[in-house]
Amino acid sequence: MARHPEFRDFDVALPGGGSVRARLTGRADGPLVVVAGGISADRAPAGDAARRGWWDWAVGPGASVDVDRFAVLAIDWLPVAGEAADRPTTTQDQARAVAAALDALNRPVADAFVGASYGGCVGLAFAELFLERIGRLVAISAPHRAHPTATAWRGVQRRILELGVDAGREAEALSLARQLAMTTYRTTEELGLRFGGAPAPAALNAPHPVCDWLIARGEAHAAGADARRQIVLTDSLDRHAVEPERVTCPLTVVGFTDDRLVPIEDLRELAGRAANLCRFVEAPSVFGHDAFLKEREVVGRALRTALLPLAICSEIAA
Amino acid sequence: MARHPEFRDFDVALPGGGSVRARLTGRADGPLVVVAGGISADRAPAGDAARRGWWDWAVGPGASVDVDRFAVLAIDWLPVAGEAADRPTTTQDQARAVAAALDALNRPVADAFVGASYGGCVGLAFAELFLERIGRLVAISAPHRAHPTATAWRGVQRRILELGVDAGREAEALSLARQLAMTTYRTTEELGLRFGGAPAPAALNAPHPVCDWLIARGEAHAAGADARRQIVLTDSLDRHAVEPERVTCPLTVVGFTDDRLVPIEDLRELAGRAANLCRFVEAPSVFGHDAFLKEREVVGRALRTALLPLAICSEIAA
Repeated sequence: MARHPEFRDFDVALPGGGSVRARLTGRADGPLVVVAGGISADRAPAGDAARRGWWDWAVGPGASVDVDRFAVLAIDWLPVAGEAADRPTTTQDQARAVAAALDALNRPVADAFVGASYGGCVGLAFAELFLERIGRLVAISAPHRAHPTATAWRGVQRRILELGVDAGREAEALSLARQLAMTTYRTTEELGLRFGGAPAPAALNAPHPVCDWLIARGEAHAAGADARRQIVLTDSLDRHAVEPERVTCPLTVVGFTDDRLVPIEDLRELAGRAANLCRFVEAPSVFGHDAFLKEREVVGRALRTALLPLAICSEIAA
Repeated sequence: MARHPEFRDFDVALPGGGSVRARLTGRADGPLVVVAGGISADRAPAGDAARRGWWDWAVGPGASVDVDRFAVLAIDWLPVAGEAADRPTTTQDQARAVAAALDALNRPVADAFVGASYGGCVGLAFAELFLERIGRLVAISAPHRAHPTATAWRGVQRRILELGVDAGREAEALSLARQLAMTTYRTTEELGLRFGGAPAPAALNAPHPVCDWLIARGEAHAAGADARRQIVLTDSLDRHAVEPERVTCPLTVVGFTDDRLVPIEDLRELAGRAANLCRFVEAPSVFGHDAFLKEREVVGRALRTALLPLAICSEIAA
């Protein structure tokens, strides 16, 4: 997609002090859709001239979240990069930041909240806290509470980061933590298909092809990342907790069966307990937890279906 | 089991120089059974007055591998603890060390080789290298080659250890690497059952209950462990490769369906391609890769069934 949609960045003062940076993309007077992604995501799902967006196939002109029809609101996650990251930040805190961004836009209601991974958790927290301010929620690969296995893996990542900070080796620790995270985002099947049958290197402890891939991903992530902020964000995932019964808006749940971090059983429980389930899409994917970034057909169709009522309204209004 | 079986420790000179420590436990003139376990295992599966054995319910007087009937041979893995660990050690190297131990005992043939995890890989290598020297092989949760997902996780562990050695933080790195390893030995189901629903701690980055458990396991392992040796042993697993068709002795394969490290599909392939498959036992277990240590019923029955011909011979000889 060559054309970058129009956008406007703005700072949002938070009720508890401080501020967060937000972006409104697309048709400012259209139905408003909040878009939120993983802990590495930011306010620019559609990207801009400087950088590709983290979800540019899903959010853009003519895309499933169509910025020619909708006003898309996204925020940078708390804590603000470069600022102190010394206390817990909950998914409820992020939800309050989104609500503050809506206030700043003078929009009482998010017509839809589309969240994947951490962003879906924030969407659930938003729906529970602000039931009058949300039209519908699409939660992709996002549970109502973290699974202990996911907490186990993220806990090891945090302790790697702590060791790195403490030993003055932050960049290496950021890379290692990301390498571990990558193994949890993907599936056994994918790594088998990509790297199976490769011969072992001759030298002791020389990296295998799968390790070369992980190291490259880790180093790319480490550049410019902040270990303290990373600790707060993964900690936030592990303290995430929402009561599904208190999510009363129309809800679409999308889950992938081989997601290591979010067992499909937990999404079945969320869907089963939610007050107003519209649709539960359960699909296989070799990409596991990263399916929301990779499975364009399944995710795109779920988004278009969930947003169809908004699209129809915007047609009528036009 | 209060009674400790009789044993004799001895040093085995290796063909390539150096030596390895071995132990013969039980009835020295009985059928000979080699027993080999994971990378943390040693020559003492049945234990002794000083320490519990790593497989004391499976190997002992009256146990599935019955030391009242059998001579049980086990070795300490190469590289020897405290010696240089600066070149690759293959599962074939370990198999040659076992063969040298048989030579030292003047026993041309292992009537059976019982190996689990790494020990099963060494058993497969032994069967491929020394087809005339093995009566039967029981390989539990042991593939003919490492899966790239297992290599990915072990590679991250090695890089944690390298960082620790390099930064002068070896004990912490050993603990962290073990914590990561533990997450791969167990299953999502087990951790969910044990730790699901526990409330999050109040403070930022305070350990959750699942993390407390991992940290305790990591620290227990780190005490007295050697990061360089750990690197060689996990590297050895990742360069493991045996042609199943060249394993011609009678083979029992035991696998557990939720093993994260050894996908059951890989064991099905091993069983399907082996030249002389006797039995393929496929069972579920919440303990994943650690099932060989935990699933006494399934593993014990598989061992007794596979060793029955030897037991009958020992009855006739008695």
